[in-house]
Amino acid sequence: MPNEIRRDYILDRWVIIASERAKRPTDFKRTPAQRTATASCPFCPGSEAKTPPATLLYMPSNGGITKTADTAEGPRQEGWLVRSFPNLYPALRPREAVILPSEEFAFRRDAVGAHEVLVESPRHDEHPGAARLPQLRLVVEAYIDKVRELSRWAYVQVFRNHGEEAGASLSHAHSQIIATPMVPRLLVEELEASRAYWEEKGRCPHCLILTLERGGDRFIYENDHFLALSPWAAVYPFEFWILPKRHQSTLLELQAEEKANLTRALRVCLGALAQVLNDPPYSYGLHIAPSAGGYSLYHWHLEVYPKLTLQAGFENSTGMFINVTPPEDAAQSLRATAQDVEQKLNERGES
Amino acid sequence: MPNEIRRDYILDRWVIIASERAKRPTDFKRTPAQRTATASCPFCPGSEAKTPPATLLYMPSNGGITKTADTAEGPRQEGWLVRSFPNLYPALRPREAVILPSEEFAFRRDAVGAHEVLVESPRHDEHPGAARLPQLRLVVEAYIDKVRELSRWAYVQVFRNHGEEAGASLSHAHSQIIATPMVPRLLVEELEASRAYWEEKGRCPHCLILTLERGGDRFIYENDHFLALSPWAAVYPFEFWILPKRHQSTLLELQAEEKANLTRALRVCLGALAQVLNDPPYSYGLHIAPSAGGYSLYHWHLEVYPKLTLQAGFENSTGMFINVTPPEDAAQSLRATAQDVEQKLNERGES
Repeated sequence: MPNEIRRDYILDRWVIIASERAKRPTDFKRTPAQRTATASCPFCPGSEAKTPPATLLYMPSNGGITKTADTAEGPRQEGWLVRSFPNLYPALRPREAVILPSEEFAFRRDAVGAHEVLVESPRHDEHPGAARLPQLRLVVEAYIDKVRELSRWAYVQVFRNHGEEAGASLSHAHSQIIATPMVPRLLVEELEASRAYWEEKGRCPHCLILTLERGGDRFIYENDHFLALSPWAAVYPFEFWILPKRHQSTLLELQAEEKANLTRALRVCLGALAQVLNDPPYSYGLHIAPSAGGYSLYHWHLEVYPKLTLQAGFENSTGMFINVTPPEDAAQSLRATAQDVEQKLNERGES
Repeated sequence: MPNEIRRDYILDRWVIIASERAKRPTDFKRTPAQRTATASCPFCPGSEAKTPPATLLYMPSNGGITKTADTAEGPRQEGWLVRSFPNLYPALRPREAVILPSEEFAFRRDAVGAHEVLVESPRHDEHPGAARLPQLRLVVEAYIDKVRELSRWAYVQVFRNHGEEAGASLSHAHSQIIATPMVPRLLVEELEASRAYWEEKGRCPHCLILTLERGGDRFIYENDHFLALSPWAAVYPFEFWILPKRHQSTLLELQAEEKANLTRALRVCLGALAQVLNDPPYSYGLHIAPSAGGYSLYHWHLEVYPKLTLQAGFENSTGMFINVTPPEDAAQSLRATAQDVEQKLNERGES
């Protein structure tokens, strides 16, 4: 197949799909990094004092969990299952915003907001692609709690960096949350494009994408409530998205069964990614409606960005991208492996 | 200084300037990579047969240069000073475009255009920050020749990746040129923002930026025709721009003295970058008016993006950025070192 230039489903974002030098999974050879716990890991149990007091703790309690937090003065609590606390070097700080003077060409805002670290498990290596389902379900629950708690800020960005090449400075399984005082640009573009589509066609573009891609060349995985696909104009090799089948604007709307199926979709798809590419570095981010409400037109989802190639002078200068793995090829590998992963989960009776 | 969130001069691009965890040059410690010539370098003299026939050759000739090209069938010419040829694995190919069928959500274009490699010197290590001025002047001349030659395409992107971490797969001094069948998104945004500013204020925003930044906290370097500055909302640590002082929309308009001063600005500023940060990986890209003409409102410039930090889940998901070196700090280091570099050039009598 010759190269082609593709536009994103709804954004004005163009990607050169370089099929002619298409890279297969084995072209991205790598030795999996050693990511075992060290005595010095500040996120492992026993090192709680190396981090700020927790703003959210899930503690085991009679077969269920209790949600609590550390007090500022008291000792850090131990025995937690999930633990969230402020980043020691926050990009944004929770405090009252001051108005900064702006001049021509010098527009600025005060850097208020929040920046938290969410430790996903007491086990150093319990990353989503290999996690026990009940533990990963707690991570999903904690995302929801944090998005709700931080909704006084304009937008809450939940994201995860995995592996040094994807910006994870510590290897203990963790996510991050940055709550911003403004709706970020990419979300604004998605919201505007979704609104324009609704106005023109009277329906949600993502609902239609789900219908069109289901079972097709870019389809990866589905269960009762979620579907995973390689997007038509994937920016990154092996990029994939996980979308709720039911139209909903944020994960705050998730029902219990949907949470279970989101957990399963994460486990299966990230497990498949790890198998296909030998535990590659990747990032993911939730794309949800802004906190203010009134965005029921938006269809939330999660986007996974494997870090297998570099973006440099061309991408930085143009805002265009070059993807050396056609999404159809990526989906084929991920789809086959996702079936294997799911089958093994079923054989072990995990749910 | 507390963190702040800054908007680009004219684009709707926001950057968290993380002054609270500000990184100084010494925080980006690195050992300079060994980049000496190897027998296997396909860009070194004597290996011409390993690359396609040259589309542009500068040959020494009676103290001047002659511009020529290889023929498709004949042997490759040797003894060149600058050599440009098609990339063996082009993202875009020069041929007649065919109309590709598009469906709802599946917009695409044929991947036509050009993708060339421009070898900047017969000397493996003659990178712009350390180049002889007469040799670097030829590189500037070759950029101009290539932009003119490829102007049947909508846009000609000249760029340079330096160092493996910035995507340079070969270490021989070289630039790349990708000519696209459409004006890239970032250029469209710059053109639209410039036009809006003209319409509102009746003047070029970049001309005013030059006036406002000259000699200020973000000023780095100037000569008779060019000025270098760290932009107000720099996306990358130590990012800087080089702009012509005279309003001009593309480097095709450069007069002889201006070419000499662009060469000097490149040599001094990239030399300073290499000294301050121990030969860091970086990319740069020209931002020029589209080929079609009618864009005299645009003010062309060159943007340099050092690769010192990673962009990952937050940046990919939001389109916002975090820069850990305030541009004022970067400019202070680069400005002092640029003076040293310029002084040494003058002492050696290079011009």
